[in-house]
Order: sequence, then C-alpha cells, then structure tokens
Amino acid sequence: MTDPVLELRAILGPKGWLSGIDAEPYQRDWLNRYGVAPLGVARPANTAEVAAVVKLCREAGLAVVPQGGNTGLCGGAVAEQPNAVIVSLSRMAAIGKPDLDSGSIVVEAGVVLAALHEALEPHGLMFPMHLGAEGSARIGGLIGTNAGGSHAFRYGMMQDLVLGLEVVTPDGAVWDGLRAVQKDNAGYQLRKLYCGAEGTLGIVTRAVLRLYPTPRQQAGALLVMPDFAAAVSFGAFLRGEAGEFLTGLEFFCDVGLELALRHVPDLAYQLETRGDVYLLVELASGSARVPLDDILASALEWGMEQGLVLDGALATSGAHRAQFWRLREEQPEGQRLEGEQLKHDISVPPGAIARFIEAGARICQDILPGVRINPFGHLGDGNIHYNLSPPEGRVDFDGKAGRFAEALSALATQTGGSFAAEHGLGRADPQGTMNPGVLVRSTL
Amino acid sequence: MTDPVLELRAILGPKGWLSGIDAEPYQRDWLNRYGVAPLGVARPANTAEVAAVVKLCREAGLAVVPQGGNTGLCGGAVAEQPNAVIVSLSRMAAIGKPDLDSGSIVVEAGVVLAALHEALEPHGLMFPMHLGAEGSARIGGLIGTNAGGSHAFRYGMMQDLVLGLEVVTPDGAVWDGLRAVQKDNAGYQLRKLYCGAEGTLGIVTRAVLRLYPTPRQQAGALLVMPDFAAAVSFGAFLRGEAGEFLTGLEFFCDVGLELALRHVPDLAYQLETRGDVYLLVELASGSARVPLDDILASALEWGMEQGLVLDGALATSGAHRAQFWRLREEQPEGQRLEGEQLKHDISVPPGAIARFIEAGARICQDILPGVRINPFGHLGDGNIHYNLSPPEGRVDFDGKAGRFAEALSALATQTGGSFAAEHGLGRADPQGTMNPGVLVRSTL
Ligand SMILES: Cc1cc2nc3c(=O)[nH]c(=O)nc-3n(C[C@H](O)[C@H](O)[C@H](O)COP(=O)(O)OP(=O)(O)OC[C@H]3O[C@@H](n4cnc5c(N)ncnc54)[C@H](O)[C@@H]3O)c2cc1C
Ligand SMILES: Cc1cc2nc3c(=O)[nH]c(=O)nc-3n(C[C@H](O)[C@H](O)[C@H](O)COP(=O)(O)OP(=O)(O)OC[C@H]3O[C@@H](n4cnc5c(N)ncnc54)[C@H](O)[C@@H]3O)c2cc1C
Repeated sequence: MTDPVLELRAILGPKGWLSGIDAEPYQRDWLNRYGVAPLGVARPANTAEVAAVVKLCREAGLAVVPQGGNTGLCGGAVAEQPNAVIVSLSRMAAIGKPDLDSGSIVVEAGVVLAALHEALEPHGLMFPMHLGAEGSARIGGLIGTNAGGSHAFRYGMMQDLVLGLEVVTPDGAVWDGLRAVQKDNAGYQLRKLYCGAEGTLGIVTRAVLRLYPTPRQQAGALLVMPDFAAAVSFGAFLRGEAGEFLTGLEFFCDVGLELALRHVPDLAYQLETRGDVYLLVELASGSARVPLDDILASALEWGMEQGLVLDGALATSGAHRAQFWRLREEQPEGQRLEGEQLKHDISVPPGAIARFIEAGARICQDILPGVRINPFGHLGDGNIHYNLSPPEGRVDFDGKAGRFAEALSALATQTGGSFAAEHGLGRADPQGTMNPGVLVRSTL
Repeated sequence: MTDPVLELRAILGPKGWLSGIDAEPYQRDWLNRYGVAPLGVARPANTAEVAAVVKLCREAGLAVVPQGGNTGLCGGAVAEQPNAVIVSLSRMAAIGKPDLDSGSIVVEAGVVLAALHEALEPHGLMFPMHLGAEGSARIGGLIGTNAGGSHAFRYGMMQDLVLGLEVVTPDGAVWDGLRAVQKDNAGYQLRKLYCGAEGTLGIVTRAVLRLYPTPRQQAGALLVMPDFAAAVSFGAFLRGEAGEFLTGLEFFCDVGLELALRHVPDLAYQLETRGDVYLLVELASGSARVPLDDILASALEWGMEQGLVLDGALATSGAHRAQFWRLREEQPEGQRLEGEQLKHDISVPPGAIARFIEAGARICQDILPGVRINPFGHLGDGNIHYNLSPPEGRVDFDGKAGRFAEALSALATQTGGSFAAEHGLGRADPQGTMNPGVLVRSTL
C-alpha cells in the first residue's frame, strides 16, 4: 500500500497539507484541554477535495476530525489519537450573493461568522447568530455544535437557521441537500440531524442560511435586580409586553461582574446601585413607527413599582448599548484571567432558572465551601453558563471537578433540563472514521 | 403460538380494540385514496399499552400504523396490507397544565389541535399552529407529518415547536425525551428527526410543546394584486417594514376564489376590484402601544403608489378579518365540490414563487390545455399548494395525473425547492414493523 500522506499531499497540493510544526496551531482546543498531534492537517480548497480526503482516510484506516474555528468548548475539533487527520475548512470561505427576495444565502463551511455579518451589512439583511467567539467560529463548526448564542431565543439555534446543507458523508460521498426552503418534508429531516452532530455524521462543506431583515431601530437597557426570581418574573412580563421586539434578554450576577471589572482594562460600571443579579434587555424593530424606547421605559417603570427592578438605565446610543453588553461579554475573559475554572453549560425550562440557581448554590457550597459561582446566560431560553472559580485565595478545586459536574448534571436533569445546552458533548463526555470518541461512545 | 388478536385484546381491554365494522371509520384516508382493512384498530389508553402493543406486533410479525386525526393528505395513517394494526392515539388526549413562566405544556399525542387552542385561551398563551384541519388533526399526527400551516413562517413548523418527546420505538421500548428546553445539544437532535418521520421511527405518545404569549392586538388586510411578481415584491417590503408583527402572509388567486364563491354558501367577496392574485396580511403585537393599523395602512398606501396593489381593505374587526380568511380557507372545500382534482404540495425559495407559478402554468397548459390551476399558499416561506381542476366542462384529467406530478416535481427541484413541503410523502411516494411503505422504500 502506498503512503497515505503522499496520497493526501497529491490530492491537496502544497498549500493543502500541513504537518509537523505547521500543524501545531491546529492541535489543541481553545481551552487547551484536549488534542494530540495528528498525522497532519488537510486544508481542502473545495468539496471534491474534502470527499477525496475522507475516502482516502477511510481506506487507510485514519480518523477524520473536521475543524472550523476551533473555538468549541468540548474538544470535538482536535484529535484524540495520532492516527488522525484534522480537516480544516479554513480555505473554503466563499460567501455567495444573498437572495434578497427569499432571505437566504449560500456559504462555504469555512466562512467566519463575523465575516458573514460584515458581508451582509450593505444588503440590509442579517444572519441573526451572535456569540463571543464570532471573530473565529466558522459556519461548519457552528453547525457541528448547533450553536445558540445571545439571540437564539428569538431567532433560533443553528438548526433553525440552516435551510440546506451539502455534506461529505463518512464514505466520501457528497450529499446534496442544498435547498433554500424552510418547508421540506421529503424524507427525514437530515439537515436538522447534522446540526449538533459534531462532525460524527460527515463534513459540512456548504450551507444555505436563513437571513432576516436588519432592524431599523434598537433599544437597550441594563437593569439591577434583587434576585433571580425577580429576573424570571420580569422576563415573563417582557415576553408578553414586547415579545416580538425582544432580541436580547441576558442575565449575569455580581460575582461575574466583579471578575470582569477586576481583570479587564477599560471596563467600567456606570450605574449607582450594585445588585445580586443583572438583566440586559435588547429590543429591535423593522418599523420606525414603533415607540421602542417608550415601551422599554414603561416596562422598567412597572418593574420598579413591583419591586422587581432596583435600578436601571436605558442606553442612549448604540455605543452605550455596546458598553452594557461588554459588562456581560467580558466575563469569560475576566474569569479566565482569574485562574483555574470549571465551565458547565446547562439548559433548564426558563421558569425554573431561579430554582436551579438556588439549589445549585447550596449543592456547590456543600461540595467546596466558598466556591465562587458565576452563572450567566440567556434568560429567554433557560440556558445557563454555570462557571465556577475556586474560593477567594485558593488556586484549585481540591480535585472536586468531577463531583461538581455530576451533581450539577443530576440537578439539571431533575429540573427537566439538559447538561449540554449550546456547546455539545465533544470529548467532554468521554465514551469510528468520523470524529471517533465524540458524541457517541463507539467500539471502533 | 397464541392468537395475537387475543393477546392484543387482553392488553387493551374491550374499549381498546376495534375490529370488523367498528374498525371501518379508521380504514380509509381523508381523500379516500388509500387504505385496506387492517387486522384491527388498537386504541391504547396510555404509553405502557402502546409499548405492549408495539412489542407484541413485532413478535407476531404484524405491521404497526400510528394514526392521529387521519387528516394527512398522503395516506400515511392507514394500512396498506391486511396484516397491520392501526394504533389510534385518540384515547390519549390529556392536556397538562401550561408552565406560564417557561412557556411550555405537556400533552398526550392524541390531543386534537383545536382542543389545545381552547384549553390555552384562559391562560393568555397560545400554541401558534393553525391549519384547516385543526378540528381533527392530533398532536402526534402533526408531529408525524411535521405540519406547517399558515403561521409557520413566523413561528416555525412542528419541529420548531416541539421541545421534548416521549416515543415508543419500533422495539417496544419507551424513549424519554420529554425535556422542556429549547437548547439541548446532548447527542443527536432526535426530537427533530421524529418530526416528519411519519410514524416510521416510532409512535409519539407525549410531547412538550412551546407556547407563545397571545397577542394583545391584531390587524388584517385583503389586497388585490396585478400578478405574482407584485405579491412577492410587496411581501419582501412588508418583511422589512413590519417583519416582527407579520403573522400571516397568504396568497391565492382568482381561480380558487371563483371555485369557493361558486360552491360555498354564505361566502361573499366585498371589494370592488377583482384581480389575478390576492394577498391576505395579518399583523399581531403583544404591545398595545404599537400602531398596527397605521403601519398596515401606510404599507398599503406605498404598495398602491408603486403599482403593486390594485385595491385593498383593512379589516375593521376580528369578525371582518375572519371573513377575509374564509375566502382563502374555503378554497379546498370549493375545489373538492367542483369535482376531481390533483393536489401538489410544493416549496420553493420565496423569491422564486412568481417564476415557479409562471413556468408551472406553461407546463400544465401544455399537458392539458384549459386545465384550471389554483395555486394558493404561504408567501412567507414559499409553500405553494398547487391544485388542479379539469378544464371547464371536463370531469377528469385524461389520465395525465402522473405527467403533472412528474413535471411539477422536476420544476420544483429545478427552482431549488421541494415537492413535499408540509404534507410529507406517505404512500404518495410508493417505494419494516413501523409504518412499512411510508417515507422510505424498504425491502421488508
Ligand atoms: C469566548 C467564547 C464564547 C462562546 N459563546 C458561545 C455561545 O454563546 N453560544 C454557543 O453556542 N457557543 C459558544 N461558544 C462555543 C463555540 O464558539 C461554538 O461551539 C462554535 O459553534 C464553534 O465553532 P468553530 O468553528 O470554532 O467550531 P470547532 O471548534 O472547530 O468545531 C466544533 C465541532 O464541530 C465540528 N465541525 C467543525 N467544522 C465542521 C464541519 N465543516 N462539518 C461538520 N462538523 C464540523 C468539529 O469536529 C467539532 O466537533 C463560545 C466559545 C468561546 C471561545
Ligand atoms: C382541510 C385540510 C387542511 C390542511 N392544511 C394543512 C396545512 O395548512 N399545513 C399542513 O402542514 N398540513 C395540512 N393538512 C394536512 C394534515 O392536516 C396534517 O398533515 C396533519 O398534521 C395530520 O394530522 P393527523 O392527526 O390527522 O395525522 P394522521 O393523518 O393521522 O397521520 C399523519 C402521519 O403521522 C403518523 N402519525 C400519526 N400519529 C402519530 C404518532 N402518535 N406518532 C408517530 N406518528 C404518527 C401517521 O402514521 C401518518 O404517517 C391539511 C389537511 C386537511 C384535510
């Protein structure tokens, strides 16, 4: 048998195959927890090359690991065995012309999310997916993890935004599901199944994405709340009062705010009051005739009367709104700079958020007294990023990471929720040709 | 081996097993095109009975055909072989208490859609799925076909509205996926896969559904347009101008209006102008502070200035709005009473609707000159119900049904669309224990 690396090189050309030191930037995951050196990194230029690589790897008994921006938080995009080829989609980054009447666009899987946002700007259309990693995350990876982000409760997760897909299946065939229609009931909903499959069912090479008109006006507010129960009640009120304008409804708490303010330069908190819990509200409308600011202001007033809101400020400009958002978005960075941390990605029914947080705090304090709990996330869909830092003055968790994970997972299930909300399972749930070890335990 | 019918009777009790003449009402599909007499009809009272029936049928080599309201248009809910048991979910019709904070509810699969609407009314919440068959269609059947309906472009299809499922799988096991969270990336998106599986992957016994707040105000209009291109352009304008309020955007044409007015008593058209194409627009808002009528009126004005709208009327009340909707919703009944017809359920990218209709007309007139084409449907998601009546004075299609289907299917694919938008494939695409012959061609 010929050397598979020689064959891969022949398929991919000199720009398309990286090994040794050139492959190192692709080797470890974003949190530097997973990944061994692969045989090499394939960087195909088109779908045919992806198919040829997969076919060859299959014949040669090599594992195939698709990689997008490598910002996934569960290690799914790096190799767990040396006999693996990482297939980076980074060279397949073409963006089609948006179909303005249909509200859709065809993109290659390697397109970076922020680049797509930028390309759409002049057309008055937007792709409504926003997350902290958007400067690096790529469409294929967002599909692989079925990403959510801050606007998911309004516009949906990737599975809701993907109309069609082109996929290279594990046998190296090309599945053409590149349709641009929302309603397609001819056979099983395979396009949905690929969302969140973390590369185990094939490599996404192109996608048709759903676009929305860019709103003509936006409004935003930062609110200080006494507790989580108040945040949940106020959220339910807002959904009734301004449901169709609500594009952001994020909560965070004082622990996370403190970590961000401590470590991130240029970050300032401008309100007079501090509280236990904060809510970021964002409204948007396509119509210039909707009194968005009024609607938000009177909701705020109602909240204050009810004792649900302690303090609050309406954003006076886009820049002001961005400042509010930074208080939330810099928290992962702040907590990372604080030192060791444990991340959990939990989903519960939105009405059960307060209950979960309260019970979770009791459980965590039992396991390690003084542990700093920083839950933040998306109030609208009950998604809680539940991150822990060691007690003030300690550098680690006393070997109790497993106990935290088990207890929180049990609590999530008990609350009717899930322990893998947005980020997927990847190798974080240790248990094939396509991404072996990810998502499903396999005997291969 | 003992007689499986005796065993089924023992499992189900006297109310739970129908055969002979009692089974006849379950035997044929809504359009009376499919269905042979089954061995009998099982009417289980709970999930455990469903599981026992499936297990027994599997052991006895009997086919299992789940049936909801039997309003499906593709024959998927009736038997195609005598050695089959129809499992009717009609006795499993319990509706849980809605979770107001989370916006969700647990229901049994046999709940009739209209009954769910009614049960929710006092709670200020709604389940945003509306279709002509809602007085009979049941949740399990809506899931089985991944139903869409008139509000799908705003709120999604069943796959978007189902948060969790309980399913009896083909081996008689119970799969518990009854989670009430939107974000759940633990493993493959099985809940999505069951939507549209037409009973081939198991029997849905319970579901957690997503609810939305009932809007506080609504507005509606009926517009007369010169042609489909105008309807598409006006639709795109509305999506930008009033996207977040847009809950209905339905088109129909004069052929269908004529058929409805001819056959349906009490139906009246009140505008002065008739045109080739009509648009029904519905807006809704949760906020009382949005000038909905103004927004709609000025969109209409703009449309008239642009020559896209020939005539139009704003609904002055809920009853008035309902009158407008009846002009569209009575068309299937009108066309049924006219005599033989051919139904096709097509999806194309919304921007391609005009192109499809124009090319389709040419193709159909070539196949059978004078054939009456009645396309109506959902402008927002490009879903066209493309129904044909024979030429005026003829009673049939001269044996050309197959040619129409083939030509329109080819045209749909060519236009980037699908030939099975809402209704599924069922036995209409003739190609297991679970619903053999439906959806996938099987060698069993
Ligand atoms: C600061 C930060 C903030 C974040 N915030 C959010 C958030 O709010 N919401 C959220 O959901 N996630 C969030 N994430 C997680 C991460 O950004 C997302 O999971 C993102 O979707 C990963 O995209 P990627 O291109 O980096 O994928 P990668 O990490 O490269 O890959 C992720 C998975 O998808 C597979 N994959 C990659 N490309 C393909 C392909 N072409 N075909 C098939 N499978 C493929 C990989 O094998 C892997 O299993 C955040 C991450 C960071 C670092
Ligand atoms: C007048 C009229 C208007 C309609 N308008 C629309 C419309 O606008 N949009 C639209 O999408 N459809 C429409 N339909 C089609 C039909 O109403 C839908 O397909 C509906 O979802 C069928 O529900 P049902 O309970 O009657 O299902 P059934 O006909 O009983 O079953 C449909 C399929 O689902 C399977 N199934 C049934 N119950 C279960 C279960 N518990 N678990 C697993 N599988 C199951 C069956 O085996 C079958 O394959 C219309 C039909 C009519 C008659």
